[in-house]
Amino acid sequence: MQQTSYAYRIELDVPYEEAIERTTAALKEQGFGVLTEIDVKETLRKKLDVDFRKYVILGACNPSLAERALAAELEVGILLPCNVIVYETEPGRSVVSAMAPISALGLVGSNEGLRSVAERADQKLKKALASLES
Amino acid sequence: MQQTSYAYRIELDVPYEEAIERTTAALKEQGFGVLTEIDVKETLRKKLDVDFRKYVILGACNPSLAERALAAELEVGILLPCNVIVYETEPGRSVVSAMAPISALGLVGSNEGLRSVAERADQKLKKALASLES
Repeated sequence: MQQTSYAYRIELDVPYEEAIERTTAALKEQGFGVLTEIDVKETLRKKLDVDFRKYVILGACNPSLAERALAAELEVGILLPCNVIVYETEPGRSVVSAMAPISALGLVGSNEGLRSVAERADQKLKKALASLES
Repeated sequence: MQQTSYAYRIELDVPYEEAIERTTAALKEQGFGVLTEIDVKETLRKKLDVDFRKYVILGACNPSLAERALAAELEVGILLPCNVIVYETEPGRSVVSAMAPISALGLVGSNEGLRSVAERADQKLKKALASLES
């Protein structure tokens, strides 16, 4: 697993569609439902007539953690849900990247309650990605 | 308009439902379509049986800017779409807050191409909110 300044990232030797299915299942294992789904390829085709790679943005939400985050800071909905992207690098090969909540929620400044929720979400998303690699 | 570390925020003397309608229209004026909508109150009620204020997370996307952002950095979908939240403070009074893209996209480090897109998105979201205040 790679870690960038705002995400955890893995590459999988599975086709795009299967990567989405596996990712959704792995998120569910960690208590994250997928609340939103943006098909980027389809959106860019429809709106701009541009050809783009297969790419989806999944909005993952763990309701208990979301509730705790909102209780700690009402405005935090701006940074929710936790996005997880899946895209194709070549046929049969896909990337899965999840937002690193500690970095994203770090934007809200020094809110201790929020920090502990972010750490919990971070662990869970990392676990979900790790399970996909194994 | 208030500016926080990650958002632009206004308060309106209009009911929640009307604030959502006006916000959606103001975003459209600036080229942002609403791609996703999470009813936070309803989600927390359904998943946790918790009573929460009226609160929605709108996922706003300007397709041209999104395409430029993705061209500058493929992983940036993690931080898209630009979230705009609307919530009720009391009956007849609402808050609208929009992600400040410069802060959010600042997470990706020193990517010049991305910075210029973020600045453009920032201006447009600020304009949308300013039009709601006038």
